[in-house]
Amino acid sequence: MNDHNNFYSGKKVLITGGLGFIGLNVSQRLLELGAIVTVLDNFMPTDVSKPLAEVLGHIKVAIADIRDEEKVERVVRDQEVIFNLAGKSGAADSNKTPLNDLDVNCRGHLTVLEACRAFNPGVTIVFPSSRLVYGKPLYLPVDEKHPLAPESIYAAHKLAVENYHLIYDKLHGLKATVLRISNPYGPFQAGEGRAYGIANSFIQAAVSGRSITLFGDGSQRRDYLYIDDLVIALLRAASVPESRGRIYNIGDGQGTSLLELAEMAVAAAGQGSIVHVPWPNEYMAIETGDYLSDISLARHDLGWAPRAEIHEGIKRTVVSYQ
Amino acid sequence: MNDHNNFYSGKKVLITGGLGFIGLNVSQRLLELGAIVTVLDNFMPTDVSKPLAEVLGHIKVAIADIRDEEKVERVVRDQEVIFNLAGKSGAADSNKTPLNDLDVNCRGHLTVLEACRAFNPGVTIVFPSSRLVYGKPLYLPVDEKHPLAPESIYAAHKLAVENYHLIYDKLHGLKATVLRISNPYGPFQAGEGRAYGIANSFIQAAVSGRSITLFGDGSQRRDYLYIDDLVIALLRAASVPESRGRIYNIGDGQGTSLLELAEMAVAAAGQGSIVHVPWPNEYMAIETGDYLSDISLARHDLGWAPRAEIHEGIKRTVVSYQ
Repeated sequence: MNDHNNFYSGKKVLITGGLGFIGLNVSQRLLELGAIVTVLDNFMPTDVSKPLAEVLGHIKVAIADIRDEEKVERVVRDQEVIFNLAGKSGAADSNKTPLNDLDVNCRGHLTVLEACRAFNPGVTIVFPSSRLVYGKPLYLPVDEKHPLAPESIYAAHKLAVENYHLIYDKLHGLKATVLRISNPYGPFQAGEGRAYGIANSFIQAAVSGRSITLFGDGSQRRDYLYIDDLVIALLRAASVPESRGRIYNIGDGQGTSLLELAEMAVAAAGQGSIVHVPWPNEYMAIETGDYLSDISLARHDLGWAPRAEIHEGIKRTVVSYQ
Repeated sequence: MNDHNNFYSGKKVLITGGLGFIGLNVSQRLLELGAIVTVLDNFMPTDVSKPLAEVLGHIKVAIADIRDEEKVERVVRDQEVIFNLAGKSGAADSNKTPLNDLDVNCRGHLTVLEACRAFNPGVTIVFPSSRLVYGKPLYLPVDEKHPLAPESIYAAHKLAVENYHLIYDKLHGLKATVLRISNPYGPFQAGEGRAYGIANSFIQAAVSGRSITLFGDGSQRRDYLYIDDLVIALLRAASVPESRGRIYNIGDGQGTSLLELAEMAVAAAGQGSIVHVPWPNEYMAIETGDYLSDISLARHDLGWAPRAEIHEGIKRTVVSYQ
């Protein structure tokens, strides 16, 4: 990542949702690169681990919700790059409480963008969307031209927020890039009450000696992305000028079944077990089947490719939990 | 439209935004077909014309905003079909006040859909989206597979609300159909303060002896759809079972330049004039160039095709204003 050194050294960078899993990993890397990091998040973790304390000691933290106009306006001023990671995750949840998802994810991000338009219209902003905007894949691997058919309110709102970023880029001068990310996993968490995705929850279960619950036979293949690779993709998206106004799939480009993932987690942890249960209706209704990213465009424009191999990534994650 | 007689006779039909231009035309036709019509709208026109009074005498009117959960819940019960026409229009406006557009268009429609899910999950619902979800066309005519690239917050929210309808269809049992309509025009309005689109505003200017303002040379071709044809498309969308969960372009499939449109309006009115002014920035920023609908899918599935020829449609609209 030497190519980032010059770009981020001394740069003022804001990370919304910065105390989450992805945000902390981005912060850590940015500090190594000499950036001046501010984090905006709506809550401070109560159980502060050693690596977290280390990061917290070197960044500025603003505790506020992205829907809080005044605080957001104050924090976006003077920033050169924003990694706009805030938001509520959970596709199944969003279908139960769609108005809440709308408020956090759409109103929240419009508030961030309106603040940028008013106080920092030249800022570079990167938004991590989700592969869920594609819905059930019509072909594999899925490229960025695949039809969009979100199957949850969460995914519909991710798509709306993608469009907000691209519209503010065209109309108001922001330099926006959208990444459609697959399933990230890896070390470094902020503590209880945070969402980490399926791979981390499997690994956590195995490390704790608990059983991993698979819906059905676990044969669906997904595209698991090691966090370090995602961090590089985010940093490149902001530093490569060609990425402006564009959308990139970011995944590992390999497929792993949920069963294989669970088996790898159990093997790496040396404990834990796997149980199969029938599909709950609410998950079956939004199940998208196999998913695999076509990452050619990111490879070409961002010069990015995932480096971590999944066995290795899982081992490192297991070690971080032990 | 004899084919609709059996379907709508005695049917309970709700029209949200039913006192607008499209809603009143739909109401009028539904009354002719023997439907039991309820209209939900957030304001009653103050200047009630004779045809409007005629319709108002035969429908049930509920004055409420679609964001008013309690009233919406009450009005959706027992309905068999909903034409979900409510919402705030205006692409340029939406870019100035995006949070307001979000609240009316996204929160409003989620409120309607949540009420249906709770109190009327088997209802048939038709949502008129906009050709603006496509953004600047990459090819003409534009079919439903054309990439989606909304250039205004209004269009981004239309796309979100399309997805809401399709998600509620898949997850909660509603029977939803989305129409992506081009530029409707024609007789019958609800009075001041209502939006009617560009063709009607041109005709209104000509009939009043005022001048029609064209941005630039007026050479952009658009797809103007006579209101009676749109009404038939809406009625078919709800009555044809094959349309469930699908999206259809609804336009006239012919192209007419803005200049031609203005000239036809002046000729039909026998007065008025045309002035060219430079493009205002806020309109230029969201200008999409030529647009033409590919309506093959609606033709095939709905057995629908536009019947009105534009010269004739404009003449009839002129007469209605005189």
